[in-house]
Amino acid sequence: MAKHEEVKDGVIFPIGAKNDAYAQYFIGQSYLNGLVGGDPGVNVSVGLVTFEPGCRNNWHIHRDGYQILLVTGGEGWYQEEGKPARFLKQGDVVTTHDGVKHWHGASNASWFEHIAITAGKPEWLEPVSDEQYTAV
Amino acid sequence: MAKHEEVKDGVIFPIGAKNDAYAQYFIGQSYLNGLVGGDPGVNVSVGLVTFEPGCRNNWHIHRDGYQILLVTGGEGWYQEEGKPARFLKQGDVVTTHDGVKHWHGASNASWFEHIAITAGKPEWLEPVSDEQYTAV
Repeated sequence: MAKHEEVKDGVIFPIGAKNDAYAQYFIGQSYLNGLVGGDPGVNVSVGLVTFEPGCRNNWHIHRDGYQILLVTGGEGWYQEEGKPARFLKQGDVVTTHDGVKHWHGASNASWFEHIAITAGKPEWLEPVSDEQYTAV
Repeated sequence: MAKHEEVKDGVIFPIGAKNDAYAQYFIGQSYLNGLVGGDPGVNVSVGLVTFEPGCRNNWHIHRDGYQILLVTGGEGWYQEEGKPARFLKQGDVVTTHDGVKHWHGASNASWFEHIAITAGKPEWLEPVSDEQYTAV
């Protein structure tokens, strides 16, 4: 039994649909509920991303922008290249600056969700290998 | 007994301190938990604003920017000038575009909280009178 199964039912916002558009950049199943996007008067997109246990996105870089993560449920990890992984739980906030290579995702034992506030364009890189993931 | 008293204890994020810096622009007591701010690499600030029942901010305009509200708890109102007020509850999302005169706050019967993602500078205007507030 995974931890924080309640995240599947949505904590504040519903988890949305299977994140098919970005599935190529994830290991494992994620879900996306787009809250704000495609608005020419707003330079960020806002979405809720939910990760099943063990799911994480590939290493990536936000170009000409940034990303803010607001953790709304479950337990996960955030890691910038060359730094120790940071354990994340409900109420944590992460800011990723322009040009910083990083990944984020659920812990192996728990569902995880965060709101992502994103400016600029992501550059997607290699997957987080099982060796890298299990080393956190 | 007000509705949604649980908001006082924080839903995802703690409610933070009394919002003294902006008290001059509010009727009633609000609280502010600044989540992201003052970061030169990020063009928005992110904060949790909590309103006691009946509390609302003055009419205001976001200049050279915008604001996104993510409602995380309780019940409240959002109104743009010349339009009917919109009732807000947990899970609702509001985008206010540049130059639009508006206000937001709790309902008279309930605590209310939202995350605010803000770009640009607010221009603060007149209070929302009791007549305007009770008419929603």
